[in-house]
Amino acid sequence: MVRFVDVGNINRWAAETGVERILTDMVEYIERDFRRWPSFDKAPRVASHSPLGVIELMPTSDGETYGFKYVNGHPSNPSRGLQTVTAFGVLADVQSGYPTFWSEMTVLTALRTAATSAMVARALARPASHTMAMLGTGTQSEFQALAFRGVLGLNRLQVWDTDPAALDKFLRNLAPLGFEIVVATSAADAVFGADIITTCTADKANATVLTDEMVEPGVHINAIGGDCPGKTELDAAILLRGDVFVEFTAQTRIEGEIQQMDPDFPVTEIWQVLAGQAVGRRDDRQITVFDSVGFAIEDFSALRFLQDAVDHTTFYTDIDLVADPDDPKDLFGLVTAGSPALV
Amino acid sequence: MVRFVDVGNINRWAAETGVERILTDMVEYIERDFRRWPSFDKAPRVASHSPLGVIELMPTSDGETYGFKYVNGHPSNPSRGLQTVTAFGVLADVQSGYPTFWSEMTVLTALRTAATSAMVARALARPASHTMAMLGTGTQSEFQALAFRGVLGLNRLQVWDTDPAALDKFLRNLAPLGFEIVVATSAADAVFGADIITTCTADKANATVLTDEMVEPGVHINAIGGDCPGKTELDAAILLRGDVFVEFTAQTRIEGEIQQMDPDFPVTEIWQVLAGQAVGRRDDRQITVFDSVGFAIEDFSALRFLQDAVDHTTFYTDIDLVADPDDPKDLFGLVTAGSPALV
Repeated sequence: MVRFVDVGNINRWAAETGVERILTDMVEYIERDFRRWPSFDKAPRVASHSPLGVIELMPTSDGETYGFKYVNGHPSNPSRGLQTVTAFGVLADVQSGYPTFWSEMTVLTALRTAATSAMVARALARPASHTMAMLGTGTQSEFQALAFRGVLGLNRLQVWDTDPAALDKFLRNLAPLGFEIVVATSAADAVFGADIITTCTADKANATVLTDEMVEPGVHINAIGGDCPGKTELDAAILLRGDVFVEFTAQTRIEGEIQQMDPDFPVTEIWQVLAGQAVGRRDDRQITVFDSVGFAIEDFSALRFLQDAVDHTTFYTDIDLVADPDDPKDLFGLVTAGSPALV
Repeated sequence: MVRFVDVGNINRWAAETGVERILTDMVEYIERDFRRWPSFDKAPRVASHSPLGVIELMPTSDGETYGFKYVNGHPSNPSRGLQTVTAFGVLADVQSGYPTFWSEMTVLTALRTAATSAMVARALARPASHTMAMLGTGTQSEFQALAFRGVLGLNRLQVWDTDPAALDKFLRNLAPLGFEIVVATSAADAVFGADIITTCTADKANATVLTDEMVEPGVHINAIGGDCPGKTELDAAILLRGDVFVEFTAQTRIEGEIQQMDPDFPVTEIWQVLAGQAVGRRDDRQITVFDSVGFAIEDFSALRFLQDAVDHTTFYTDIDLVADPDDPKDLFGLVTAGSPALV
């Protein structure tokens, strides 16, 4: 039997456990896997592009457990009442090849993206950071806010979005949770005085959400929205002024903010900082940029975290996914066991 | 909601519908897709290798529907009471990126492999064929026998396997179904006088199941077992004497019998024969070889066939796989809707 976490169960789990606690705990799973980064099989994701979007498969393996995520990205989906990004994922046993765990990952991707951001900010932002600017208050925004509070203790948010309904939704969801929230009058207003700037907008275009003159020395920039070819958010000048940290260089050069730069533009892989093999922040005036695109190992960590978290709970169901005849060579006998008459 | 066909439901469907009828109907779905082969996105499969086996993702798309299969291959699994190959698959809507259909595919892969073999034999074997030799009576063998009877009317089987238990199992399963079955004393004995030779052995090795002198003029060889790097079944001399037909040349050169040959060894893609763009059999003395490795489009066709076949039946269940908040930007509100207290 394969354990399956459907949408109802993951929502029940998140609501009963608490999103902030989940995010805080998940960071430890992701960081542990980033520290052993070289032990993972890092196959490139396989993309199938169409005029309206992309469907991708993102596999990885640590030699014991195999995992993959199915994820789509369709920027025009919200105009039809659909999610831009939906996902599901599977874990399997490398020894037997049998799937063991299967989960919805629309919610889980939102959680792991926020947890990864907070993990990176813990390594790169100034220790005394207490204010975060958020440009974009869409699907990902509340998860980011809770992850940063849970992991860094950040409590003040300066937010801005061009969509007033998205701002209203953000306030409705987070105001009851004890944040100090300032709704800015512009992106520049939101960014002013912030220790950390999170950009998470969803347009599939090379936009400039953040311009160079808005960025003060010492800031950490958590750039979430530039995550596919042709989609960026940052002024290229910011990348030149700051130091850029990435998940997996080969992928980020295609999908991240650095697609604007030369192919040899210097970057540091964040796992090296976490493993003590590279320097993160050098001083309080340095600008650090996390050029986040999302990588398969984060999904792997999130799936393993969820698998452990729902063990001995009612937040999963067993599904019969693997045909398993008593005699491994007699699949036919299994298939036709209930045959009423002739086959 | 996504429709899900689990092991219990596919077995119930197969037993109640009849395996031979399913195979015969499925051939038409596969052939229709092979005839429009150029309209498919043919991404390479993504393999994750380990000492004991391989886990692969096989995606494809026709621009309207996207499909992929997860499949493992672990030759030592039967020694631990497990299946060598298990699989599951998903269909999705290209316009929205949302998954729509999800099924076990261990059974479905067995069905589509046999249906593909029979489809190819209908195009390549001599029209008057009535006897098939089968070298290997493992998991795939009964499905092959029923597909060839359903599609070509073949009723006489000359079978051989080095494992007496596998032979017994084959007889137990198929003798009640009206076949004329002869258990041979050797591979050469099984092949003698046969119109079609099916090789389906499972060793992960370069073995020679069929040697050149066993093969008489006019025979069609349905070579199933050579399906991954380092695994072949045929004497290379047979490939030189006959004409070789493949699914997708680039993949077969790596995985099929022709991995033994030079990279420019001439082959014909079977879709071209089915679409009337290439010649299949020229005369009654020509040896034709189908070097089968299995391709993503066959899985796509099989999934679409199953999706149509179970529509308006009780052979599927609805599962909640896609988180779909009323406001697409308010995933957080959906996740925390049932929150008892603080998030």
